Amino acid sequence: MSAALLQGLREALGDSQVLSEGDLSSYELDWRKRFQGKALAVVRPGSTAQVAQVMRLCAEHRVAVVPQGGNTGLVGGSVPDASGSQILLSLQRMNKVRELDPANLTMTVDAGCVLQALQQAADEQGLLFPLSLAAEGSCTIGGNLATNAGGTQVLRYGNTRELCLGLEVVTAAGEIWQGLSGLRKDNTGYDLRDLFIGSEGTLGIITGATLKLYPRPQAKMTALAACPTLDSALALLGLAQQRAGSGLTGFELMGDFALSLVRKHFPLLPQALPPCPWTVLLEISDSESEAHAQALFEGLLETALENGVIEDAAVASSLEQSRALWHVRESIPLAQVEEGLNIKHDIALPVSRIPEFVAQTDAALKAAFPGVRLVNFGHLGDGNLHYNVQAPEGGSAADFLREQEHAVNAIVFDAVTAFQGSISAEHGIGQLKREELALRKSPVALGLMRAIKQALDPQGLLNPGRVL
Amino acid sequence: MSAALLQGLREALGDSQVLSEGDLSSYELDWRKRFQGKALAVVRPGSTAQVAQVMRLCAEHRVAVVPQGGNTGLVGGSVPDASGSQILLSLQRMNKVRELDPANLTMTVDAGCVLQALQQAADEQGLLFPLSLAAEGSCTIGGNLATNAGGTQVLRYGNTRELCLGLEVVTAAGEIWQGLSGLRKDNTGYDLRDLFIGSEGTLGIITGATLKLYPRPQAKMTALAACPTLDSALALLGLAQQRAGSGLTGFELMGDFALSLVRKHFPLLPQALPPCPWTVLLEISDSESEAHAQALFEGLLETALENGVIEDAAVASSLEQSRALWHVRESIPLAQVEEGLNIKHDIALPVSRIPEFVAQTDAALKAAFPGVRLVNFGHLGDGNLHYNVQAPEGGSAADFLREQEHAVNAIVFDAVTAFQGSISAEHGIGQLKREELALRKSPVALGLMRAIKQALDPQGLLNPGRVL
Repeated sequence: MSAALLQGLREALGDSQVLSEGDLSSYELDWRKRFQGKALAVVRPGSTAQVAQVMRLCAEHRVAVVPQGGNTGLVGGSVPDASGSQILLSLQRMNKVRELDPANLTMTVDAGCVLQALQQAADEQGLLFPLSLAAEGSCTIGGNLATNAGGTQVLRYGNTRELCLGLEVVTAAGEIWQGLSGLRKDNTGYDLRDLFIGSEGTLGIITGATLKLYPRPQAKMTALAACPTLDSALALLGLAQQRAGSGLTGFELMGDFALSLVRKHFPLLPQALPPCPWTVLLEISDSESEAHAQALFEGLLETALENGVIEDAAVASSLEQSRALWHVRESIPLAQVEEGLNIKHDIALPVSRIPEFVAQTDAALKAAFPGVRLVNFGHLGDGNLHYNVQAPEGGSAADFLREQEHAVNAIVFDAVTAFQGSISAEHGIGQLKREELALRKSPVALGLMRAIKQALDPQGLLNPGRVL
Repeated sequence: MSAALLQGLREALGDSQVLSEGDLSSYELDWRKRFQGKALAVVRPGSTAQVAQVMRLCAEHRVAVVPQGGNTGLVGGSVPDASGSQILLSLQRMNKVRELDPANLTMTVDAGCVLQALQQAADEQGLLFPLSLAAEGSCTIGGNLATNAGGTQVLRYGNTRELCLGLEVVTAAGEIWQGLSGLRKDNTGYDLRDLFIGSEGTLGIITGATLKLYPRPQAKMTALAACPTLDSALALLGLAQQRAGSGLTGFELMGDFALSLVRKHFPLLPQALPPCPWTVLLEISDSESEAHAQALFEGLLETALENGVIEDAAVASSLEQSRALWHVRESIPLAQVEEGLNIKHDIALPVSRIPEFVAQTDAALKAAFPGVRLVNFGHLGDGNLHYNVQAPEGGSAADFLREQEHAVNAIVFDAVTAFQGSISAEHGIGQLKREELALRKSPVALGLMRAIKQALDPQGLLNPGRVL
């Protein structure tokens, strides 16, 4: 049975693109090394037609397919299970920019293009593709679309969903839906595009996309501000939105303990401001000039100082200084690794309710686990916190993770639910949060999702065991 | 059978909210007076629970339900068919703003709220709800969501879809999906929200929504520019996007014949510029000040004049002048009515291909129908043209419409298809374009849409005969 399938796959793709021997761990082990799978074979189609051929063969043999881009996901969504019975379909060979239309502000690309390559392709035309996230050097746009990735500029440009105008998708039956579109408006039927986006490969395989581009801003400027409380950080956000409008492209929150880990593990990194309860990194993108951005920042921060919203501030005066500020922000996850394993949460809340949520949940965790330490940072402008729980000092981080993860999650996710938040803001569900989702999503929503899955993938062949 | 249903509906809603006698034409006749239906009864639930009760009763009796908001749709999507067997469900009594959260920049509202009332509710808090369209005084947000309405600020803020964070929906089985969410990020499963948005009441009944709000701009400024060609209008668009970034909130195109009808039928309206092939109305929303917007406009128009992109320009120097410029734009549809019936098209194209499309399609129509006149105007920044075909001068507009509509549509829609455009940019499909959609949408897309419809409404009770 599987010999016939492998034979068919070799005929369709050529022997060299059907891998079933040797070290396949780069395909079979997830990025966080929590999920180790075993594929029946890794296949590497080079075109949409070949992806469709693979899917038709697998449908005929009733063999499951796990699509994979850069394999940088954080929830175990893109590796096969351990059964050795699933086909791992890598999109990495499909990595061409098919068309870039500056006058329409769009580009049409293969799903396997690496995000950074797309940023560069836009930049070479004097344009901006604004999706930006930590894994951009190796993640693919297909994976970004499948998980509706977020990142650091969501405040202004939205998630990956908002950056996509059209898709090309191979269905569970191996048909090709040609939904590539450079249109800003199209009200001709159901929104298939957004259904496939964020479905983590469980409804179809994204093979291509038409993406939005933007004029490149004339200037980008970064500042740090020291806020005494979370309420004052929110007040600063409101003021910045009022003054800068959509010029505000970044508003990142960093708790003092998160920054203290950076100071501890990377003592040579410059610290632009003295320690304070909450540090905010603001970024303005300006369509006029650096001088205009500077004036805007100065006025904004002056008002914030006068109103007692902030206690101190520093504006980066060069691109280099600006990069240094971002570097500190981006060093938080690395500093956490140095400090030891922790229990990560990628949650979203209504922005207005964040101070109350943090106060209550911090207190509940500290009561349940005396000495526990909270690494709290994230995209405050989007209501998205990386609310991570670090073991008490001196104890074993590995033991804490193993023994307390479930109890910690229960406290955090119960609070998220009570505040009408989301247990997965930007990382998705994958395998990691599937059971949690089944418990926490409303039965009506789960029923609708299952009906849609059954309608589009009746044999259950597309990335089984993920999301639902 | 239907007596038992009516009895059940009266018990659920009270006698006064189940109308089956008297003049029901405001519910049964569509806004363009092309579709006259007859309902078994008009029901007016006052709460989401009552909508669910109505749906459960209708499901039990296998009677179809046609949801209706303000009944201002242009494609016959919200009136019952002529059989007298369908229940018309009006959402108009559900018209409360449930919550407005300025710090989260959201409001949660009933589906039956009139759009203008929502604009005002936001304005009273110093905030902006940017959806704006001709019918705003009577259309409802539920209808806007069901049709993914567009309007005049899509360029900056997107269609209704982009303005919605969460929905409350009654399903075909009469269950309530509580998907109201004030979250900017939420990757927990399939995108049910966007599936219901734009589905024209065929997958569920939208009863509530959480909408995005924005800080109100400090200033809004309008200008007119005279462009010798469509290519120069596009060059002006590129320049304006580069200079103003997301401050550019309007870019409306008006062909000379469209404006000549306004001059002819409303000779007292002031004309800010002499006639020219293409007139563009630009609008800038500024988060700083009127002076800043003025300087930006002056710099932009000066460069455009120097580069030969425009031949003339006028900047409104007061709110009154600005309103007068918009008034001319908004008088085009009224001037068309005065001139007589015409054949309307609401099409979208890749922005970059519009000049070529217009040249080819104008020529094809003039060759096929000598003397035919083209009323071409629309939202150029979104690639959305209202490309309307007026009978040759002197002939009977009614005869032309009756005899030639089909042949005219064939030429226009063939060209739209060849240029990878959309036959319905913002008005939707309804009854009017259902057959055209079945002919022009790809079989794979239609197959996916039918599978979803079957999954979510297996009895086919929700707005049958629309879209699919």
